[in-house]
Amino acid sequence: MGAKTAITPTRLDDYAEWYQQVVKQGDLAENSSVRGCMIIKPWGYGLWENMQQTVDNMLKKTGHKNAYFPIFIPLSLMSKEAEHVEGFATECAVVTHHRLEKGEGNKLHPAGPLEEPLIVRPTSEMIINEAFARWVKSYRDLPLLINQWANVVRWEMRTRLFLRTAEFLWQEGHTVHATAEEAVAETEQMLNIYEDFLENWLAMPVVKGRKSESERFPGADDTYTVETLMQDGKALQAGTSHFLGQNFAKAAGIRFQDKDGEEKYAWTTSWAVTTRLIGGMIMMHGDDDGLVLPPKIAPAHIVLLPILKGKEDDDKILEFCQTIKENLSKINYHGRSILVELDDRDINGKKWDWVRKGIPLRVEIGAKEVAEGKVSLQKRTSSPKEREELSLSDLEAQVVDILDGIQNSLYEKALTHQKEHTQVINNKDDFYAFFSKSSEGITQGGFVKAYWNGCPEVEKKIKDDLAVTIRCLPLDEQEGIADKVCALTGEPAKNLALFAKAY
Amino acid sequence: MGAKTAITPTRLDDYAEWYQQVVKQGDLAENSSVRGCMIIKPWGYGLWENMQQTVDNMLKKTGHKNAYFPIFIPLSLMSKEAEHVEGFATECAVVTHHRLEKGEGNKLHPAGPLEEPLIVRPTSEMIINEAFARWVKSYRDLPLLINQWANVVRWEMRTRLFLRTAEFLWQEGHTVHATAEEAVAETEQMLNIYEDFLENWLAMPVVKGRKSESERFPGADDTYTVETLMQDGKALQAGTSHFLGQNFAKAAGIRFQDKDGEEKYAWTTSWAVTTRLIGGMIMMHGDDDGLVLPPKIAPAHIVLLPILKGKEDDDKILEFCQTIKENLSKINYHGRSILVELDDRDINGKKWDWVRKGIPLRVEIGAKEVAEGKVSLQKRTSSPKEREELSLSDLEAQVVDILDGIQNSLYEKALTHQKEHTQVINNKDDFYAFFSKSSEGITQGGFVKAYWNGCPEVEKKIKDDLAVTIRCLPLDEQEGIADKVCALTGEPAKNLALFAKAY
Repeated sequence: MGAKTAITPTRLDDYAEWYQQVVKQGDLAENSSVRGCMIIKPWGYGLWENMQQTVDNMLKKTGHKNAYFPIFIPLSLMSKEAEHVEGFATECAVVTHHRLEKGEGNKLHPAGPLEEPLIVRPTSEMIINEAFARWVKSYRDLPLLINQWANVVRWEMRTRLFLRTAEFLWQEGHTVHATAEEAVAETEQMLNIYEDFLENWLAMPVVKGRKSESERFPGADDTYTVETLMQDGKALQAGTSHFLGQNFAKAAGIRFQDKDGEEKYAWTTSWAVTTRLIGGMIMMHGDDDGLVLPPKIAPAHIVLLPILKGKEDDDKILEFCQTIKENLSKINYHGRSILVELDDRDINGKKWDWVRKGIPLRVEIGAKEVAEGKVSLQKRTSSPKEREELSLSDLEAQVVDILDGIQNSLYEKALTHQKEHTQVINNKDDFYAFFSKSSEGITQGGFVKAYWNGCPEVEKKIKDDLAVTIRCLPLDEQEGIADKVCALTGEPAKNLALFAKAY
Repeated sequence: MGAKTAITPTRLDDYAEWYQQVVKQGDLAENSSVRGCMIIKPWGYGLWENMQQTVDNMLKKTGHKNAYFPIFIPLSLMSKEAEHVEGFATECAVVTHHRLEKGEGNKLHPAGPLEEPLIVRPTSEMIINEAFARWVKSYRDLPLLINQWANVVRWEMRTRLFLRTAEFLWQEGHTVHATAEEAVAETEQMLNIYEDFLENWLAMPVVKGRKSESERFPGADDTYTVETLMQDGKALQAGTSHFLGQNFAKAAGIRFQDKDGEEKYAWTTSWAVTTRLIGGMIMMHGDDDGLVLPPKIAPAHIVLLPILKGKEDDDKILEFCQTIKENLSKINYHGRSILVELDDRDINGKKWDWVRKGIPLRVEIGAKEVAEGKVSLQKRTSSPKEREELSLSDLEAQVVDILDGIQNSLYEKALTHQKEHTQVINNKDDFYAFFSKSSEGITQGGFVKAYWNGCPEVEKKIKDDLAVTIRCLPLDEQEGIADKVCALTGEPAKNLALFAKAY
């Protein structure tokens, strides 16, 4: 047995239950009385607000503007793109009535049937592109670069907080272009923005690639993805960017007069990241004491923990805390102030609340510290017992570097884990052995790079046999395939594919 | 006939249609294919983003934290507070199915009936207070100060962009307190925050008051409101703050152990402002040339309009524009950078697009201006022909004052209008004559202050006869009522009431 941990069970004992406990004890979210719909609590929502602000800045810098479109999509409109509606048909919440009426026993029941059922948006391509068809008339109106922050509903049967919920929050970008090349360039640009955001803000290393045909977004010509690897060796799709070709432009009638005077169908894209990222961040960085938050995205950076004894020293201690808070709040950390929490509750064990919440830095302040003008600093990424004494002025001078150090160490640790759990496999026996063996304990195997003949049947078989899917065809690794053979069939290879079990 | 206007019809000719045209030609919003649900276009959403940021800062400064709760409320949960559910029963969108299935002719129809219907939230008291019942255990957990930014749905039969839509965006605050006094203090604090926001940011003068019983939020003990007066003399309720007593605490079971060891029901509040404010701002400040935006909330402050002639001067002109843009962007204006749009489209009449969009300042730049290092400045609040020449350095030095001047002039103009259209009326004949006469032309009368005996029957009669309602019982005007008589009945007065026709 190791040391006692703040979270029970540990990752090794039961990774799935560890995750639920981290979410709960980190005070991030909880289930509601509506099946599959979560409540995002203030600490969890604070994370999302920071994610929103960061991504929103990136989108605005690249010329995108925010707008808002209806939550409902009429059934007939949703049905206009056949592949699209089929892809979402099994998970659509449908509004059929518009009021309540009293019936037997004075009980309320739905009344006022709608002429046409309304789908609660599972994604907004249809309702947004319908508007775009009105907005776009000429090549001068292009590119049209729109983003929406919204809630969407997908009636998933098995849900898990953040990772898969019936309602979730996201941004969905929708753009219109005059040519296929420009639309593809936008699709790739957005993938790069997601990579930048994940790696440099969430400290989550990614593998960029394209989805195989069977894993594409319903109605897309091409889906790009950023794939991440969790500590248990399972993959998490963290963001997707779709080149939609002219499929939605044709379904919605987005036509424009081009420079040459001809009327043409436009080319569209869509791309999204969601509150699922919070789940990914938890699983990538969390430890057996709970959450570990990357400083650049944490809702607060430092908690001050005054050690109060109910004596006259207490006032001086709290005064010192206020001074620290004010001084640190004036320091800019990647576009936000340093955010300081002061926890002056008179209870035992409050330090451990903050450990479980993953706050990057804890500072304990007692009478001794006040007398010496010092603080006792603890990092969430160090052992709970490790502490460093430094003067307040040193803390102020060093805090940005200390936080950046934590941010970088999280990224490096995650990257090392990803590299150590990425294997190349060249034949079917090894492939099956690897993913069969790995379903024990914490590790679900990790990433496997293997050549593939491009056949959906082969893909389907390993999914049925091993619950393993192609996460993506990594970009920049598709050269020199001509002389390679498929690891699973021995036939000529068409792609290098990244395989894994996945959330 | 007066000068030609950028909007047809004028306010005087047809105020309702003028409003629709201002929204359309200002590129703020449009109707969608979903009955009553609007699309908020980028220029309109930019306004909302600034409103959100401003209100969010105010909420955070007063200790409120954001969270997110499910969009759906189970019918049985919604039914737990009888008055509340009855208040919303006629306008509830109801989800009854969770997937689509192919039927005859391969057409999709709703399938997978839910065990229990789900209401799309018209407001979130029930789902939020259910969570609060889990979160609150002790007086130490109080006050609990939560806010949510969300979309809500109320199936209104007659809708109008921003003012009354089936789906709208809002913030809804929900708080829990140990005592009635603390809850009332919170309700009043939030009303004051709305007043501050409306007057100092939207340049909209308000009258603060309490609603009469018949106009209260369903389930509230007391509803406070900020009422505003539009240019046509009709009132618009701009924000409400509800003291909910223990009604929702009892329905949801929010109990806490108090300092004295006893278990007690808590006291709750809720309060909201919505995208309706955008409609109010349009109607309060707009003119016959379209939108007029208060600088502190405008999505952009200045548009640069280069006068391009396709000659070699053009490069110099655009270069000068870039210099102006960079220099102005470095200036802080009430927490945001000065936001500069550069409209280098090669089309006629682009100036008028920006007049209709209500941008506070326009700057035209031609070869002459570049040569002299000057700009030609036009204010949205001045005649379209009026212009001022000033050097770039003077513009930089003065721009904050110029914008503040516009902001203040809008507020003063609106306040003057409100004062000029607020009358005291002391008897029934005058009351009826006033509101009957005033239904011609632009004016719908304005505010009438009159003493009232407090009877709902009297209130109902003037509503039926004149479509006039009590907007509020103004705070600070309820003293010395004892010797007054009701203007409508001659009976002893109970309150001074503010009457008006309303949106």
